[in-house]
Amino acid sequence: MKDIKVFGHRSPDTDAASSAVVWAWFLNEYRNQQAQAYVLGNMNTEAEFVFKSWGVDIPPLLEKVEEGDDVAIVDTNNLDELFPNINDTNIISVIDHHKLSGNLKTNTPLEVVLQPYASTMTVMFNIMNIDVHNLPRHIAGLMLSGILSDTLEFRSPTTTDDDRALAKELALALEINITEYAHEMFDAKSNIAHFSPEELLRMDSKIFDIKGENMRVSVLETTNPSLVLERYDELITAIPDIAREDDVVEVLLFIIDILEEESIMILHNDRLKTLAKEAFGQEGDGKTIVLPGIVSRKKQILPALLK
Amino acid sequence: MKDIKVFGHRSPDTDAASSAVVWAWFLNEYRNQQAQAYVLGNMNTEAEFVFKSWGVDIPPLLEKVEEGDDVAIVDTNNLDELFPNINDTNIISVIDHHKLSGNLKTNTPLEVVLQPYASTMTVMFNIMNIDVHNLPRHIAGLMLSGILSDTLEFRSPTTTDDDRALAKELALALEINITEYAHEMFDAKSNIAHFSPEELLRMDSKIFDIKGENMRVSVLETTNPSLVLERYDELITAIPDIAREDDVVEVLLFIIDILEEESIMILHNDRLKTLAKEAFGQEGDGKTIVLPGIVSRKKQILPALLK
Repeated sequence: MKDIKVFGHRSPDTDAASSAVVWAWFLNEYRNQQAQAYVLGNMNTEAEFVFKSWGVDIPPLLEKVEEGDDVAIVDTNNLDELFPNINDTNIISVIDHHKLSGNLKTNTPLEVVLQPYASTMTVMFNIMNIDVHNLPRHIAGLMLSGILSDTLEFRSPTTTDDDRALAKELALALEINITEYAHEMFDAKSNIAHFSPEELLRMDSKIFDIKGENMRVSVLETTNPSLVLERYDELITAIPDIAREDDVVEVLLFIIDILEEESIMILHNDRLKTLAKEAFGQEGDGKTIVLPGIVSRKKQILPALLK
Repeated sequence: MKDIKVFGHRSPDTDAASSAVVWAWFLNEYRNQQAQAYVLGNMNTEAEFVFKSWGVDIPPLLEKVEEGDDVAIVDTNNLDELFPNINDTNIISVIDHHKLSGNLKTNTPLEVVLQPYASTMTVMFNIMNIDVHNLPRHIAGLMLSGILSDTLEFRSPTTTDDDRALAKELALALEINITEYAHEMFDAKSNIAHFSPEELLRMDSKIFDIKGENMRVSVLETTNPSLVLERYDELITAIPDIAREDDVVEVLLFIIDILEEESIMILHNDRLKTLAKEAFGQEGDGKTIVLPGIVSRKKQILPALLK
């Protein structure tokens, strides 16, 4: 029997990489299927820390899919974050918590479950219907990590009561302290010294149509914004190249200070200053602008940019 | 608070109309929301019989939706079977059992549940997680009817074990005989005397791209094919007008004999004879062709036409 390939979006973060492992485990153990988790790129440093913490091997890199491959997609339903030929594969399931992208298409009925939670893990938990005490320790650990990562330890306005309750239940079963563990995760994510400016700008980045023009909206979640800000000149030098390579008119970068619960937006030209003024009603100091309370691209940054 | 408008596809059949009522009931009773079921056209005679049998009022006709309307879509995820402006509404949920159409799109996360069962009712039952004995009689009756209709009383190859088990559990709780009730439903569907040929050809009909050309593929499920065949001349006369009005190159009609478990395809011109030969390997008598065992458009007719 052919393996089902299970994977999340490109630029895998903790929720994407972990949910691929969790779903592959569930298909193997509870649905009598043969499934293998993959990642579509290098994981970020937080996800690396998480996999190491729970003793889980990093999934192999999947470089392409072919017509007829059986695939299970997690933590995205957007073709642009997968493979251009994804609709030629045999998509068996899509488990996600994002808006409906409207570009995945199948020839046969399948399983699709999207629920408006902060983390894919909460959606999977609902489907799996397994008591947390019956989850293997590494699976419970990955699930907790996915929720803490996507909610920034419940700070993000995307957090729902179900995400919070599930994380607490998992932490209790695992006998770990959420705040301490989340800090370790966020510190790992803040360790950006060995990334190039290009890597930083594309690490957690999505392309959106903003007022008729394609722009990359990048975020860097960190417990130590100064590590990013001290590389300001490198970053703004890299932006025009990235914009050209990725065929977007602009790259927006928001440094999200997880602990202070605020964002610092990079304003390296007049277009960005105008955009920031329109979206957030502030002018900043000419180089950056501090946005108190703004921590979520999905719930706060994008709605402001698109309004 | 604004009502959530709940509706299934155009040309509502038993599963579409009934699942709108069931989902609206669930949102009102179990999710503390305000919901109202609608239909997007006149129901077929089987659905009328079902609603009368269980004492349920026929839902009001919804003629349009407007930007910002809260909507819940059931038994389809295809824009072409809804409203052209459906993506401007606030889609709150999509509950369905068809392939992914790839043309619904939202700006915010939402609830989407597609599962590859024969009936939307089996998907809803999984979500609702309510013991059948706690369902009001009319809701259980509509749910049973949806399954029996979409599975042709378990004859269709789309039928899964879960559909069959749920129908039997519902029938037991309702204390009714499945075979007798299904016969009454199918007889009601076979009562087509008062429909025009145009209505018959559009009653259960979907448009597909078949070998690069758009064609309407219509089915008429009946316990009495002779009632359709005696109107052969009327039907083939109406086909060119329908093709022109609906901008398709051809209209295929399959009369599905529920009890004999076979289809009769209308072959009114050479293009259809060629199509039938390629798809089913048979020539027929020049006017029709009998296809033993073929009862499902989704699982049998379309795959043959598209191969």
